[in-house]
Amino acid sequence: MNQQVCSTSDITGARFTIHPMADDFVSIILGALEETDMSKVWHETDDVSSCVRGRSVHVFDTVKAVFLNASKTGKHVALNATFSNGCPGDVQGDVYLTEDDKPMNEASLSGIYQDVSVHFALYPLGSTTYMETIMDQINDAIEKGIKTKGVHYATRLDGNAHEIFAALESSFNNCLEDDSSHVVMTVTISANTPSKKGMK
Amino acid sequence: MNQQVCSTSDITGARFTIHPMADDFVSIILGALEETDMSKVWHETDDVSSCVRGRSVHVFDTVKAVFLNASKTGKHVALNATFSNGCPGDVQGDVYLTEDDKPMNEASLSGIYQDVSVHFALYPLGSTTYMETIMDQINDAIEKGIKTKGVHYATRLDGNAHEIFAALESSFNNCLEDDSSHVVMTVTISANTPSKKGMK
Repeated sequence: MNQQVCSTSDITGARFTIHPMADDFVSIILGALEETDMSKVWHETDDVSSCVRGRSVHVFDTVKAVFLNASKTGKHVALNATFSNGCPGDVQGDVYLTEDDKPMNEASLSGIYQDVSVHFALYPLGSTTYMETIMDQINDAIEKGIKTKGVHYATRLDGNAHEIFAALESSFNNCLEDDSSHVVMTVTISANTPSKKGMK
Repeated sequence: MNQQVCSTSDITGARFTIHPMADDFVSIILGALEETDMSKVWHETDDVSSCVRGRSVHVFDTVKAVFLNASKTGKHVALNATFSNGCPGDVQGDVYLTEDDKPMNEASLSGIYQDVSVHFALYPLGSTTYMETIMDQINDAIEKGIKTKGVHYATRLDGNAHEIFAALESSFNNCLEDDSSHVVMTVTISANTPSKKGMK
């Protein structure tokens, strides 16, 4: 099929890449994937990126786990992810919607402290009032006390990975509730960079 | 400013990350940036990503140059980029719209042959017929003889970097002409991967 195959509105998906900037990148990537419990998501990896699909809570939990399991090596690691919900298309993975709410990786990740810097952008599709939806979510992050900064084509967040992932998940889910039938969120997350010069 | 700051409809922008999976990633990134002629684009780099803005032809030329200048080292290199045009917002960089059409890096890049694999997705915003716009561009790539394959949330392209970048630029520009006032395109490009198993 030559098309952007997408999910039903109940399925959230994430297509992501994990980039350890190190000679031993293969073992770091494979190790991070192996340490991550993916039992509650549909998942597939090819030579360009990985894709996970299922209930929103488990998609965010899985992506966060892969990232933290890679970055805890101390190496400079970047994650690029596109989260999506509601694009018209296939229903492959529907079976995972029956999973319960318990994130499978939270217990193993809770002890990891990782500072991160993030650029993210929200794209509510098929809506003429999408800019208002975007602004609502950025204001929501500010109200939660997350450090934010506008940059071209994105919003920057700085903080602890757990806090930042929670804010990203909340922004994405709020967009879905805010009458947007198809929402896309792009995220670039950087950890352990030698050129760290984040917001103070 | 706490918002997604965007461009006027005449300015195309790209926010991108370049990830050499190697211990000497810093010198590869800095070398690639240094070898790239950015004289016709507004540009800014922070610790998470880089941003270039200006006329579409020069934005694509610059991003392609940074990627090829990094991947020609033979190291496994990935590029993630979000191209954007037409988001309501600031006009910083307007001065670059007076530049002529001549790409500054084409001559230095033309001798580089690089196989790449790409996942890309188009997001025409503020339109209720966005899925048709997307399908038109995927069909256009197929008609041009580009190898395409649908994957969840993206379309895969495989081929020579010059051919692939031309197809991406064409798809993006066609969307703009196709009555979409705000278009976003995400691109993940991989070169020299040890796990290459692309389309045959």
